[in-house]
Amino acid sequence: MSNIHLLGICGSLRQASHNKTLLLEASRSLPAGVSMEIADLAEVPFFNADLSEQPAAVSALLAAFNRADGLVLACPEYNYSIAPALKNALDWASRAPDNQLLAGKAAAVLGAGGGMGTSRAQYHLRQVGVYLDLHFVNKPEVFVNAFAGTFAADGSLQDDKVKALIGQLMMALVTQVQRCKK
Amino acid sequence: MSNIHLLGICGSLRQASHNKTLLLEASRSLPAGVSMEIADLAEVPFFNADLSEQPAAVSALLAAFNRADGLVLACPEYNYSIAPALKNALDWASRAPDNQLLAGKAAAVLGAGGGMGTSRAQYHLRQVGVYLDLHFVNKPEVFVNAFAGTFAADGSLQDDKVKALIGQLMMALVTQVQRCKK
Amino acid sequence: MSNIHLLGICGSLRQASHNKTLLLEASRSLPAGVSMEIADLAEVPFFNADLSEQPAAVSALLAAFNRADGLVLACPEYNYSIAPALKNALDWASRAPDNQLLAGKAAAVLGAGGGMGTSRAQYHLRQVGVYLDLHFVNKPEVFVNAFAGTFAADGSLQDDKVKALIGQLMMALVTQVQRCKK
Amino acid sequence: MSNIHLLGICGSLRQASHNKTLLLEASRSLPAGVSMEIADLAEVPFFNADLSEQPAAVSALLAAFNRADGLVLACPEYNYSIAPALKNALDWASRAPDNQLLAGKAAAVLGAGGGMGTSRAQYHLRQVGVYLDLHFVNKPEVFVNAFAGTFAADGSLQDDKVKALIGQLMMALVTQVQRCKK
Repeated sequence: MSNIHLLGICGSLRQASHNKTLLLEASRSLPAGVSMEIADLAEVPFFNADLSEQPAAVSALLAAFNRADGLVLACPEYNYSIAPALKNALDWASRAPDNQLLAGKAAAVLGAGGGMGTSRAQYHLRQVGVYLDLHFVNKPEVFVNAFAGTFAADGSLQDDKVKALIGQLMMALVTQVQRCKK
Repeated sequence: MSNIHLLGICGSLRQASHNKTLLLEASRSLPAGVSMEIADLAEVPFFNADLSEQPAAVSALLAAFNRADGLVLACPEYNYSIAPALKNALDWASRAPDNQLLAGKAAAVLGAGGGMGTSRAQYHLRQVGVYLDLHFVNKPEVFVNAFAGTFAADGSLQDDKVKALIGQLMMALVTQVQRCKK
Repeated sequence: MSNIHLLGICGSLRQASHNKTLLLEASRSLPAGVSMEIADLAEVPFFNADLSEQPAAVSALLAAFNRADGLVLACPEYNYSIAPALKNALDWASRAPDNQLLAGKAAAVLGAGGGMGTSRAQYHLRQVGVYLDLHFVNKPEVFVNAFAGTFAADGSLQDDKVKALIGQLMMALVTQVQRCKK
Repeated sequence: MSNIHLLGICGSLRQASHNKTLLLEASRSLPAGVSMEIADLAEVPFFNADLSEQPAAVSALLAAFNRADGLVLACPEYNYSIAPALKNALDWASRAPDNQLLAGKAAAVLGAGGGMGTSRAQYHLRQVGVYLDLHFVNKPEVFVNAFAGTFAADGSLQDDKVKALIGQLMMALVTQVQRCKK
């Protein structure tokens, strides 16, 4: 289980995002030998084929994809589909030569939102993964209702069941990374 | 049929975008009494609830939504789903009070891309429309293969069947706008 | 509002189906002048182009579609998609000449199931509606959690909020039927 | 690569089904040591929890699922979604105790239909696979246009590119089966 490195990406740009909180919980629940970094999307512009130079924030993002053995995608739901910042990060990565930054990598998805727990957005994201040749973990699916006492007033995650579920997801992702490396 | 005003939005930010070309064709094929403007997304940032002030480009976009009786959405397909710039424009509009900029309005979708003609992205967009309470035209569906001689070397649309289809879509949209106003 | 006739179809064949209960509630909450019948799918076979004669149960089903101004689809969720019996009923209807039994008709969907309330199946059904040219009501969406005290031990619907929601859905469907007739 | 057994399921019940032809091609293109049987759905009824006894055709189907290391799903598209007979076969299998007939198994999908090659149905099927914990091969995606000279007048497959693609899909499935067994 040694030498596995994960890249976490949060679709919400808000500082106090519940989805970022889930990602931080994921990074705390990793088994020994597994590390994780979280991408910084603040300065990543919309993909535009007219751009003559690659922005520095994009170069940094692509380098992070390159280092990663697997992805942890925190997926808010905006209007029943994927948050543009998350989709845009994947779109940038897909433009690298031969799709080498993504193809064949393992991925996990989780999200916090309304009563459906971002499920609608997560299914769209899984379809994106077919094209990108990502190997998503099927289970557990992590659908967090952000309005059911899951988060404390200070924004911290206070639901032990959700914490346990995120731990299970990370274990399943590590297994998936190992499978995909073979 | 008088006094109908449409807002066109293109999901690709590229100057020579095939999807923008479709949108321009749509604007040329409108019946008398129907007008259309095209949104400028170049300076519209990612939605972020932390932003303290509404950027000027967003204010201009929301005013354009407010003026519109119906929407014409040019929908590229990026990695089997919606282009972030298009999704983001709708996300901004959905944050207006009571969803008044979108709810109950008629909408049409069209797109140019690979062999599937952006169909995968268009179905995701239609699901977004359920939440936004948009009333999408069902038919015709306009799926344009951009790599089959549809566009000339200078980027102009040279396929008469596609032109006719776009004309039919605009007629269907006008009918849908009239229904939705009742 | 007079002279509107609806066809209800239940995707579950079980006698004591919760989805059938929702459909019966819908039939009780119709405004004056609106009638509703419920299709009998018990003897409708799988569509098969090899069948030399139309089974009597199929003929009866198609006649019911023909009588209907609008559809009320009770949509269970089996393995994250549509129940085969419901899909099959629509598939049979779509084989009638020129799609005249379905095209342009208004439709409403509701469903009872697990915590997501059959939402995943309902979005698949809405995509089916694009091809069939059904005009689905966008709102309210009726997602019923069948395991939260919604139904009494004898199977009856005992949740007043769900009853009210179904009433709203029927009113929205009647409005949609009227729009579609114009 | 020895001792891998596959179960093929065809969503069309028609004798001369193009989708069945694809399945037969798949069975001919297997590497040494891999076998495949094709399920007989002709007598499998709609799932109905009220049935007091398991029909013999269902028992035979479940035994076939039990024998299989991986699934090959020939997926027609009916009205933009899955053919009921295919969905129903999976629904029956999912009712076995603890989902042991499906969970963790590898799967491949292919289909012949109109211009979109059944892609819309295939994405719905992939979503079903998330719940069933099937591990679908991402690539190649096999979308066959049945109306482009792909099939000869006698129904035989005469397109060498499609044959090669099916061969690649079977190789990818065998790899996926091996991964899933670990």
